Amino acid sequence: MITVQQAARLLQENDRFEVLLHAYPDGDTIGSGYALCRALRLLGKQANVRCAHPVPPAYAYITDPYTHQDFEPAFFVSTDVASLSLLGPGGTDYAGKIELAIDHHGTHERFAAHSLVQADAASCAEVVLAVLDALAVPVDAYLANCLYTGISTDTGCFKYTNTTAACHLAAARMMQAGADIEQINQAMFDTKSRARIAIERAILEGMEFFADGKIAFITITNRMRQETHAEEGDLEGITSLPRQVEGVLIGCTLRENEQGEYRVSVRSRGPISSAAICAQFGGGGHTGAAGCRFTCDLATAKQQLLAACTAALSQAQ
Amino acid sequence: MITVQQAARLLQENDRFEVLLHAYPDGDTIGSGYALCRALRLLGKQANVRCAHPVPPAYAYITDPYTHQDFEPAFFVSTDVASLSLLGPGGTDYAGKIELAIDHHGTHERFAAHSLVQADAASCAEVVLAVLDALAVPVDAYLANCLYTGISTDTGCFKYTNTTAACHLAAARMMQAGADIEQINQAMFDTKSRARIAIERAILEGMEFFADGKIAFITITNRMRQETHAEEGDLEGITSLPRQVEGVLIGCTLRENEQGEYRVSVRSRGPISSAAICAQFGGGGHTGAAGCRFTCDLATAKQQLLAACTAALSQAQ
Repeated sequence: MITVQQAARLLQENDRFEVLLHAYPDGDTIGSGYALCRALRLLGKQANVRCAHPVPPAYAYITDPYTHQDFEPAFFVSTDVASLSLLGPGGTDYAGKIELAIDHHGTHERFAAHSLVQADAASCAEVVLAVLDALAVPVDAYLANCLYTGISTDTGCFKYTNTTAACHLAAARMMQAGADIEQINQAMFDTKSRARIAIERAILEGMEFFADGKIAFITITNRMRQETHAEEGDLEGITSLPRQVEGVLIGCTLRENEQGEYRVSVRSRGPISSAAICAQFGGGGHTGAAGCRFTCDLATAKQQLLAACTAALSQAQ
Repeated sequence: MITVQQAARLLQENDRFEVLLHAYPDGDTIGSGYALCRALRLLGKQANVRCAHPVPPAYAYITDPYTHQDFEPAFFVSTDVASLSLLGPGGTDYAGKIELAIDHHGTHERFAAHSLVQADAASCAEVVLAVLDALAVPVDAYLANCLYTGISTDTGCFKYTNTTAACHLAAARMMQAGADIEQINQAMFDTKSRARIAIERAILEGMEFFADGKIAFITITNRMRQETHAEEGDLEGITSLPRQVEGVLIGCTLRENEQGEYRVSVRSRGPISSAAICAQFGGGGHTGAAGCRFTCDLATAKQQLLAACTAALSQAQ
């Protein structure tokens, strides 16, 4: 593990950078990676960003001003990547080739020659900001947009429990540096696809309550996805829906996969352990959030899951 | 208009305070009022909070530690109240009796002997924080919870366009002072009533799209409200729903009132003026958000509204 200053020195002493994002890129890997790329270019170096998947169009304000440079990369640096496999298809080809990993995941796997990992940071963007400061790169409006995007998306716009005072301080600084939070927040947090609206409607229609409204189930079948044309991205955050309902202590999402099995996400409040519920079916996770899988038919899966939830509920009362 | 220091002096020189909240109290008037009350008590003074309506149970973390004191009020101070009528039933009885109004509304009506109004503040809580600082009252965890509640609810958890760098700086300070943002954010932003879930489902079922998906209408009838048992509070923020849909430039909410008339809220993106659309029907507002009223039947109202929206759309293109 190296310090922010050591990471800055590594970047200063090298050139021809390829900044690697994780697959299915989210706001934090995108914001962190493009910010680092721009900072390196501002230092007179050559730098590109590389991702196994295309960056979603909602991030056009980050990708539009970016131009690809033509050079042979000599230094690979990853942002917000916890393991090689998360680079996506071909990710393991990078084994032994990555010089520096900048990350904030407690589960970071140390695949790089040098790792700068701050597990207490809510976002990788905050770690990148510290590196930019060590490099004495002034934060311009583009960098501010990138880093605000990383911080705000990884904290659910400062709503999730990982939000720290440092997140708010960094956000204030990014706003003072010219971050266009109106545009960013609208694109990230105030836009739902037509498919999302349609599948949300179908999900709400099928929402089931048990145990006096303390347990709620939602089910997402392949047929619902086909009928509403909902893609993976349209289902983001959907597993928090049943537990959001007032009075619900255990919220379960049953989601059919391509094999016709049901992946289950359990979310619970207070002392009720989602992990303990899921462990009964070979799954696991944390107290408030866990997962498991059922290979039986939906009705049987629901019955077994409900029995486990009801038992957990009565134990907690 | 007086300064923060002058307001602090007024509070220091007086005693037996009644802190007035606005009717149908929201997070900002509640957080601001209870924070001010506690600060005055910390200064050894007598102080109570008064509101025309009960504080919703979601704010129990603010109201539970509060105890009513028995005394005859001698100094009335309002928080987050833009006009006397907003005090609710009996509000005009306070005419000429309110010594100090602390507020952040640009439309503040100066009903008090002294007004401390900071129209550039996103929340009244930020103005109260400045007063507490001038009074040299240290921010404890209770005050931090109150003020974080005011700032976060008035900015939609730092998502709305009124959010400033000052909001983030104040939020960071409240977190450092012990604000329990996990509990507050869960209660304020991560809980939906059963009635809200039910009426949202009904609203989504009836959502209509026009002009290639650029115009969306939702309708809320009295019958829908009766069938879902939705109260006023269950409909909070619902008018932003149609415009949240990807591709929608004009989102309209038609809502039946007790007289069977339809109140319309229009929300638009970019250069399209909601105010200009509503002005055609005797209404008004801002570019991005405006309102009007139809006394005709629903089908006719929709037809007229759609014609105005379509015209506004083609003008903007």
